[in-house]
Amino acid sequence: MAAEHFADRLFDAVQRKRSQLVVGLDPRIPQLPPAVLDEAVREHGRGAKAAACAIVQFNRGVLDAVSEAAVAVKIQVAFYECLGREGMAAYARTIEDARGRGLIVIGDVKRNDIGNTAEAYALAHLAGPATDEWPAASDFHVDAVTVNPLFGSDGVKPFIARAVQGGCGVFVLVRTSNPSSREIQDLDCGGMPLHVRIAEMVERWGSENVGRSGYSMLGAVVGATFPGHLRTLREVMPHAPLLVPGFGAQGGDVGDVKGAFDPAGSGAIVVSARAIIFAWEREPYASKWGAGKWHDAVRAAAEDTRAAIWKATHKAHKR
Amino acid sequence: MAAEHFADRLFDAVQRKRSQLVVGLDPRIPQLPPAVLDEAVREHGRGAKAAACAIVQFNRGVLDAVSEAAVAVKIQVAFYECLGREGMAAYARTIEDARGRGLIVIGDVKRNDIGNTAEAYALAHLAGPATDEWPAASDFHVDAVTVNPLFGSDGVKPFIARAVQGGCGVFVLVRTSNPSSREIQDLDCGGMPLHVRIAEMVERWGSENVGRSGYSMLGAVVGATFPGHLRTLREVMPHAPLLVPGFGAQGGDVGDVKGAFDPAGSGAIVVSARAIIFAWEREPYASKWGAGKWHDAVRAAAEDTRAAIWKATHKAHKR
Repeated sequence: MAAEHFADRLFDAVQRKRSQLVVGLDPRIPQLPPAVLDEAVREHGRGAKAAACAIVQFNRGVLDAVSEAAVAVKIQVAFYECLGREGMAAYARTIEDARGRGLIVIGDVKRNDIGNTAEAYALAHLAGPATDEWPAASDFHVDAVTVNPLFGSDGVKPFIARAVQGGCGVFVLVRTSNPSSREIQDLDCGGMPLHVRIAEMVERWGSENVGRSGYSMLGAVVGATFPGHLRTLREVMPHAPLLVPGFGAQGGDVGDVKGAFDPAGSGAIVVSARAIIFAWEREPYASKWGAGKWHDAVRAAAEDTRAAIWKATHKAHKR
Repeated sequence: MAAEHFADRLFDAVQRKRSQLVVGLDPRIPQLPPAVLDEAVREHGRGAKAAACAIVQFNRGVLDAVSEAAVAVKIQVAFYECLGREGMAAYARTIEDARGRGLIVIGDVKRNDIGNTAEAYALAHLAGPATDEWPAASDFHVDAVTVNPLFGSDGVKPFIARAVQGGCGVFVLVRTSNPSSREIQDLDCGGMPLHVRIAEMVERWGSENVGRSGYSMLGAVVGATFPGHLRTLREVMPHAPLLVPGFGAQGGDVGDVKGAFDPAGSGAIVVSARAIIFAWEREPYASKWGAGKWHDAVRAAAEDTRAAIWKATHKAHKR
């Protein structure tokens, strides 16, 4: 049986849940609720095992709190990798926990390399069958990954091939949300910025694998911190689902992300990480709940964010 | 005590061993010597554990065979990551095994992301002290890593900061060795190709941290498959140690890499992976040794490659 097309699966879930919200699971040890961290240290002593254990417990709380309001989670692997093997075990466990709650899981791994190495990364991170070459499945398998385009098409195509086979998605970095992204991504390449040239490649690479939603399994990462770019890139890549980070703590707001969506309010998903998972540290959630009731703060922040994005993108549709 | 400067440590070792050879540990399961794989499967059954175990055993054999001829090893993490947690355990063990044999270890991770995430990756992969924020050290610590520049300076600077502190090195991708690298890396940016613009940034970012060798701890990856670029990039980045992949199986030969070196035969190291670690599969090593005596084939291939590069770069010096 052929796997369901990733974009169809994604946008069906968006409609069903009325949510375009992706919650970013970017756990920072010093920001974890004290009770969670203390319990892990009591059990394992200070060190990588306690930190990894605290992350898994914290993520479970977050997943329970956001599983209705979020359509997907994006797991930033760097915050797990920095704890070494223990961290990667926590990464694998969090993937399992998120899938168990019916969420689409995006591995924010930003991997890439030359062709045969890119293939190894695709096998590492995208769900699908084991092969004769690699008889053992990885436990890092997710529904979609982020990929760096610097190597050109032969670095991206192994990810596309594996994703098509397993019903997965791939989001290529087109315009990242950090301040210095302009140093390279905005360089003028024959009358247009580099990121537009990359966007054209993404549209071309993905055009063979468009689902009934009208979108490809090959999407793009476009930061919310540069709203002007979102509208342009939506036009350059009419078939690419956009994954929009930089919302919330990084400065983007609901007005900024509207340009990422098509007129029907589809075609994009928006990531909020710190502003949701650490919601109890900021108002209006801090004074209402605080660290002691962090689950409630996370749940409310996720629902508020979901509703705000849905309203903004569906009000726009009616105009 | 301040850590020794990475470039000084590297080029002192080059002189001492008369070797600019970096052996790439890119184990592919189907290419492992049958005896090594069979033993692992007998012990653990087929699966990720057996594959990871076979990789560790194979790498130990390779390390023993190349530890005199090679100045460093480059471990391509993708070939470990594709086995999930078991693979990452094998990665950590191979790092330890290589260090135990006095080799400089380069983690070919090609990571990068926005600033605070790049910092998490730097903590994951570069040797150095734990911090208050991340009290537990990762077991993936190596002497140097490869880094993708797409995010611009705020993605690279956290790696530089951590590397300076721990006496480590960072190699930024400037021109990769794969055929489609030209699609993006050669785009014309105001009269020069993108990779030259990136090279100028690398030279600038690294200029504050030059050691007594005359080289910075910030280097660049420049593929051997485009010899014309090597000479240009050596000039654009006079202070950057060059890490040159694409030698051997990818098509580069000794003549191709000469442009990467300075007139004294310093300033660069050359990676050969498949052509050395699977030397028993090809002539002249196959008929002399074959899979049964693969250690001897690997040892001979490493020594032959070391000698050829040394001779080519030091003959050039005398002209």
